[in-house]
Amino acid sequence: MREVAIIGVGQTKYGEHWTKSLRDLAVEAGLKAVEDAGISGKDIQAIFGGNMSAGTVVGQDHVAAILADFAGLIGNDLAAMRVESACASGGAALHTGYMAVASGMYDIVLVGGVEKMTDVSSESMTDALASAADREWEVFFGATFPSLGAMMARRHMHQYGTTREQLAMIPVQCHENASYNPYAQLRNRITVEQVINAPMVADPLTLLDCSPMSDGAAAVILAPMEIAKKYTDTPIKISASTAATEYVSLHSREDITTSRANVVAARRAYKMAKKEPKDIDILEVHDAFSIIALIALEDLGFAPKGQGGRFVEEGGIAPNSDVSFNPSGGLKAKGHPVGATGVGQVVEIVHQLRKESKGLQVDGEVGMAHNVGGTASTVFIHILEVV
Amino acid sequence: MREVAIIGVGQTKYGEHWTKSLRDLAVEAGLKAVEDAGISGKDIQAIFGGNMSAGTVVGQDHVAAILADFAGLIGNDLAAMRVESACASGGAALHTGYMAVASGMYDIVLVGGVEKMTDVSSESMTDALASAADREWEVFFGATFPSLGAMMARRHMHQYGTTREQLAMIPVQCHENASYNPYAQLRNRITVEQVINAPMVADPLTLLDCSPMSDGAAAVILAPMEIAKKYTDTPIKISASTAATEYVSLHSREDITTSRANVVAARRAYKMAKKEPKDIDILEVHDAFSIIALIALEDLGFAPKGQGGRFVEEGGIAPNSDVSFNPSGGLKAKGHPVGATGVGQVVEIVHQLRKESKGLQVDGEVGMAHNVGGTASTVFIHILEVV
Repeated sequence: MREVAIIGVGQTKYGEHWTKSLRDLAVEAGLKAVEDAGISGKDIQAIFGGNMSAGTVVGQDHVAAILADFAGLIGNDLAAMRVESACASGGAALHTGYMAVASGMYDIVLVGGVEKMTDVSSESMTDALASAADREWEVFFGATFPSLGAMMARRHMHQYGTTREQLAMIPVQCHENASYNPYAQLRNRITVEQVINAPMVADPLTLLDCSPMSDGAAAVILAPMEIAKKYTDTPIKISASTAATEYVSLHSREDITTSRANVVAARRAYKMAKKEPKDIDILEVHDAFSIIALIALEDLGFAPKGQGGRFVEEGGIAPNSDVSFNPSGGLKAKGHPVGATGVGQVVEIVHQLRKESKGLQVDGEVGMAHNVGGTASTVFIHILEVV
Repeated sequence: MREVAIIGVGQTKYGEHWTKSLRDLAVEAGLKAVEDAGISGKDIQAIFGGNMSAGTVVGQDHVAAILADFAGLIGNDLAAMRVESACASGGAALHTGYMAVASGMYDIVLVGGVEKMTDVSSESMTDALASAADREWEVFFGATFPSLGAMMARRHMHQYGTTREQLAMIPVQCHENASYNPYAQLRNRITVEQVINAPMVADPLTLLDCSPMSDGAAAVILAPMEIAKKYTDTPIKISASTAATEYVSLHSREDITTSRANVVAARRAYKMAKKEPKDIDILEVHDAFSIIALIALEDLGFAPKGQGGRFVEEGGIAPNSDVSFNPSGGLKAKGHPVGATGVGQVVEIVHQLRKESKGLQVDGEVGMAHNVGGTASTVFIHILEVV
C-alpha cells in the first residue's frame, strides 16, 4: 500500500446554520480544504462524502454527485460517491479515501462529511437518528439513542462503581475545551453540578451528557506521501486507518459496558501504526453521550477496564495530561453534525499536529480519531502523525 | 495495485417479494455468494453494501452493520459500510470493494447490493427515487425520472432522427432475453407495437420503456488473484473498475443526448483493461429507460454518435451479434432493485463467462457492466474477463 498523507483541511463552524443549506456547508468546507492544500479544484480526482440523513431529512440522495456539481467540479470527470455508516459516516468516508489513494487508483482525493440537521423538527431528526439502531428490534420497542446510552451507563455504574460525578466530568472538560474553539457550537463552560441537575433525558443521562443537533461540514485532501511533499512542508501521515463492527442491538452483546468494535479497531490501529496507547498525545473521541466516551477510554486502552471513571476523575483527560482529550470540545461541545463528525475530528488533529490551532493548542506529535456509528456498533479509527 | 478476482456470486430472484424483508433478501444473496465461492462466512473481512433508499423507505440506515449482524458475521470483527450513488450504488460498492482488495487492506471482501421497493406506495417510491435528481432544481419543478428520460429521448429523436420503433426494440430484446432468466421479474415477451401502444408515462416513453419497481439483492465475493486460485478454477478477473460524474441536472449539460460520464468512464475502462468496444462480448447496460440504454450504446462506443437507433434496428443487440446486450433481461425485464442492480449485472456476467447461465447463455470471454445513477450523472463501469 502507498503511504497516504493529508495535505489540506477545512471545516465550517458547527451550529444551527439557519441561512445555509447542506450544499452551502459542504462547499464551504471543501473550498477551505482545497485552499489550505494549495491545490486547484481541478486537481481533485475523486470525492468520498460521508452523510447519514440527507435522503430522509432534505430529500436529497445522490449527494456526492450533487455536491461535486454544486462545487463546480464536474469538469474534472471525477469519481464521486457517498459513504454511510450512521454517525461513523465521516470515518467510513476517510477509510474509503485512504484505500483509494493507498491502492493507486486515485492520487488527489477529497474526503468530506456534511450533515444538515436543523431543517426539520427535533422529533423528526431524533427518528432519523434512530434509524442507526436496529429499527425492528430496538426502535420499534421505543428505544432512542439517549435511552440506549442510558442503559450502558447504568450498567457501567452497577458493574464498576462508576459515579454520576465521574461521567459528568467528561462534558465539563469538553465545554471547557470548546470555549476556546471558534468552530464550536457550545462554547459556554459548565460544572459537574450543572450536568447532574440539567433536565433528565434518559436516567442517568441529562441534557448535558448528550451531544447537540448540529449543522456542519468538514473536508480533508488526501495524497500519496511522495506527491504530498510537493504541496506542503507539513504533510500529516495517516499511519493507521481501521474498522470493526459490533452487534447493532445492545441485547445481542455479552457485555454492554464495552464495544468489541472499539477494542478490535483500536488493536488493529496500534498494530498498523506501530504505536501503543501511551504514544497517543491527542485523542478525539466520539462522545455522542458521556458514557460512550468513558467506555472508549477503556476500550482504546487509555484506562483499564472499569477504571474509566477513576481515570477521568484523576485528571487523565485534562489537556497535556495522560492524553489530550477532545481538544476541539468533542461531539458534546464542538457539535455533532453526524456525517461531518468523523472528518471534523481529523481536521482538529491536523490543526493540532501542525501547531496552528485557533483554539486550545495542545502538545504532541501523534493523534487518534475515534468515530462510531450507533452504540459503537461501527467503529473507524485513524492514527495521524507528523512526519 | 493487486489484481482482483471474483470468486463467488449470488442473487435473489428480482420481483415483488411481499414475504421477504430487506434483510431476508440481502442475506439470501450473500449466503449464495459465500456458498458459490466455497468460503466460510468467517473468511469475510469487509462488506461494502450498495443501497439507495432503506433510510427513507424502511426507516433503516446503518444498513451494512445491520446486515452483517443479521447474517451472523459480527464474530468476524469485519469492516462494514454502505455506499450510495443513487441507482449506481451497486457499482459504487463494487468500485470500493475493488480498491479495498487492490490496496491490500482486505483480502476476502463481500460486495452486496439490495433494495426493497414494494413496502411503500409507488408514489412514495417515485419520490424517493426522485431524490437522485436535483431536488432543488429539477424535482421541485415537477420532474420525475421518466420525464427527464422523455426529454432526452425527444431530443435524440429530433437531433438524430431516432424513431419510436427503434427505441421500442430495446425493451423487446430485454423481455425476450428475460423470458429465459429464472431470476427475472418480467418474463413475458412483448412486441414493438405493444411498447408503442402501452400506457403513456412521459411522452414519448410508455410504460414498457420503463424499468419496474423491484425488490432484490445480489452479492459477489472478491479476492486478490493469487488467493482466488486457491478457491476456484474459474476466477473472473476484474480488469477495469472506473467511475465518472456528469452534471446531475439536465439543464446544465451542453448536450442531453449524451452523458460525458458514460464517455469518460468507458474510455478509462478500455484503457485500464487494454480493450476496445469490439473486444466486449457481453454487455449489461443500465436501461432504466430505453433511451438511457440507447445513449449508452453510443457513449460506450458500440454505435457511432446518433446511430444507436440504427444499430439496434440492424440487429446489433441480438444475442451473439456485435455484442450480446443484456442477456439477463436488463433493468427493464430482469428488474431494477436500485441498490442491487450494479452488483446483479456483474453476477449475470460472471454466470455467462463461466458458461453456467441458467437463462440465455451467450458466447464470449469478456463482459462489461455499465451502472448509472440519475440520468447517467454518476457512472461506474466494470470489465470482467476469463483468465
